[in-house]
Amino acid sequence: MKVSGTPYRTIWLHPTNSKCVQIIDQRALPHRFIIEDLRTVQETAVAIKDMHVRGAPLIGATAAWGMYLACLEVGDSRSALDELRAHGDYLKKTRPTAVNLAWAVDRMLQVLENTPDRIALARQEAEMICDEEVRFSRMIGEHGLSLIKEIAARKPGKTVNILTHCNAGWLACVDYGTATAPFYAAHHAGLNIHVWVDETRPRNQGASLTAWELGQEGVPHSVIADNTGGHLMQHGMVDLVITGTDRTTRTGDVANKIGTYLKALAAHDNGIPFYVALTSSAFDWKIRDGLREIPIETRTPDEVRKIQGLCEDGQIREVLLTPEKSSAVNYGFDVTPARLVTGLITERGVCRADESDILRLFPENK
Amino acid sequence: MKVSGTPYRTIWLHPTNSKCVQIIDQRALPHRFIIEDLRTVQETAVAIKDMHVRGAPLIGATAAWGMYLACLEVGDSRSALDELRAHGDYLKKTRPTAVNLAWAVDRMLQVLENTPDRIALARQEAEMICDEEVRFSRMIGEHGLSLIKEIAARKPGKTVNILTHCNAGWLACVDYGTATAPFYAAHHAGLNIHVWVDETRPRNQGASLTAWELGQEGVPHSVIADNTGGHLMQHGMVDLVITGTDRTTRTGDVANKIGTYLKALAAHDNGIPFYVALTSSAFDWKIRDGLREIPIETRTPDEVRKIQGLCEDGQIREVLLTPEKSSAVNYGFDVTPARLVTGLITERGVCRADESDILRLFPENK
Repeated sequence: MKVSGTPYRTIWLHPTNSKCVQIIDQRALPHRFIIEDLRTVQETAVAIKDMHVRGAPLIGATAAWGMYLACLEVGDSRSALDELRAHGDYLKKTRPTAVNLAWAVDRMLQVLENTPDRIALARQEAEMICDEEVRFSRMIGEHGLSLIKEIAARKPGKTVNILTHCNAGWLACVDYGTATAPFYAAHHAGLNIHVWVDETRPRNQGASLTAWELGQEGVPHSVIADNTGGHLMQHGMVDLVITGTDRTTRTGDVANKIGTYLKALAAHDNGIPFYVALTSSAFDWKIRDGLREIPIETRTPDEVRKIQGLCEDGQIREVLLTPEKSSAVNYGFDVTPARLVTGLITERGVCRADESDILRLFPENK
Repeated sequence: MKVSGTPYRTIWLHPTNSKCVQIIDQRALPHRFIIEDLRTVQETAVAIKDMHVRGAPLIGATAAWGMYLACLEVGDSRSALDELRAHGDYLKKTRPTAVNLAWAVDRMLQVLENTPDRIALARQEAEMICDEEVRFSRMIGEHGLSLIKEIAARKPGKTVNILTHCNAGWLACVDYGTATAPFYAAHHAGLNIHVWVDETRPRNQGASLTAWELGQEGVPHSVIADNTGGHLMQHGMVDLVITGTDRTTRTGDVANKIGTYLKALAAHDNGIPFYVALTSSAFDWKIRDGLREIPIETRTPDEVRKIQGLCEDGQIREVLLTPEKSSAVNYGFDVTPARLVTGLITERGVCRADESDILRLFPENK
């Protein structure tokens, strides 16, 4: 999508140096637009772990490129395969909740196992993973657009208000996004939409990333505190909720950024449709009970105790919000039970959040 | 309650200058402890409007002292009564949601209407309002303690985890607090409690005020992002929720800090008791439908777009969180329908959140 009018993806191979992968360092957004070079699998792991990149699909894509960089490092010898597997294990441990990470590493390893020309194939597979994510995001956009059109038809001439939590935007993917893909499709189709952007404490991916990318693309939006969505829903100011997911079970339980469950409860209480947009790489086909089986990442308390932003003097600074001696607890995700999810928007279409309807779209996972 | 070991109230008449009221300027907490002098009704109005003081009971108490300062200004002449009424109207308009504000102003005016010695009586009445709030808070503490004891008895040797939203602490009242009064009573009774403190964006009254006052009093607590409570409840990490209220209808609908409704939904979904603590001055006996009839304050978008905290250089600074061009919307309160409220903890005891049980405790409002 566009940054100051120029189209970008979130990750790409350097145009003139095929030993370097480039990413947008998302930690500096929305205040600075910084492109970072990744030259080793170690740098890739740091970029994932320290959230230079984040968002389940982009974590997967970055891990794929990390495996490509690992191939450059270990070369094409037969014994190098064990080293590649070790690099893969290392990458998988950088973040625990997003299932795309392991999916991408395993897919790369599978391709690399029996090939004489590992480097070329790794590059090709990483490019394929990225292109596939982009194609899938576009298709999610098309399927989501139909849902938005239905709502727009019921309130002609009026704005369709959509609430989203965290950033499941193009910055979380390779392009277009998952939750945001329908917003962009609707906006480009000339529909009159407005997005309520949950700021998404503690890391504020909504206020800093979703607001930024919607603004760059010209989509009308307002940032709100995470506390606000329930009130808006009670007063008819939300027509639809769409979020992303870091992992969805085969039964439709949805792990997503902490706080998603609260919005799903409010949507349910007010009869507002609550959709989750995902490419199929975010399904965990192995598990059925999201609440018990999806590992929830615990992150540093300092993400709650402190926050960074732009000072009046133009510097990006971190400020302490809590008393010096108060502790904090920081769970990164929660699980929304399938019973609260109206439907899933996937690259193959929209389905209910239950096993039989999910498998109708993805019968190969029966 | 204690500040660095010394007992304080939130508002008091200057010990040697009876023309000056003193408050804690809460905008600087938790990083600085600043006492501010109020010498006129205008300064009092600014202190309420710009949230040097906040919290429904304290807003009422401050307005009462504002009327005392107004009496000093207009004197004891008969014509001065109209001026007092105008000052009262002015004070009432400083914040729209808390019902205690109008309640305190009206109570002061009623006392002042037919008296030759207005100044002395205003001082006496303001002191009475404060002392009454303190006494009522203590009683709420005792009634709430019984609820906590019941839970503690069911899990012997284990910690009772209580979640609260915003600050309904002694800083929101004159002393002890409403929601926090049971915490202090339980802690002082030697019960093993731990408080989950919602940071309460956008103004962070939880992270900055509740965490600070619990810390000063030695009550174990952890600050969490507002998004976190649902996850904690799903995993058995919350035994009880207690919040305050800015206005509660005679039917038990509860207006409180934005986001309260989301926690009530999560408590309900997980079978966790959700109590609201209030002194009777927070009841609005005139209305029945909280969602339709309680005015919800809209505050400046900059409270969402920016936040202040302590920089590493020791300065309190404001930082911008959103893109410069993104707008924000900032509703201050939401309404939790009575159906989600397990009970109300008042100075007269605990009742269900329905009209008949509320009127059982407050029959004079039938």
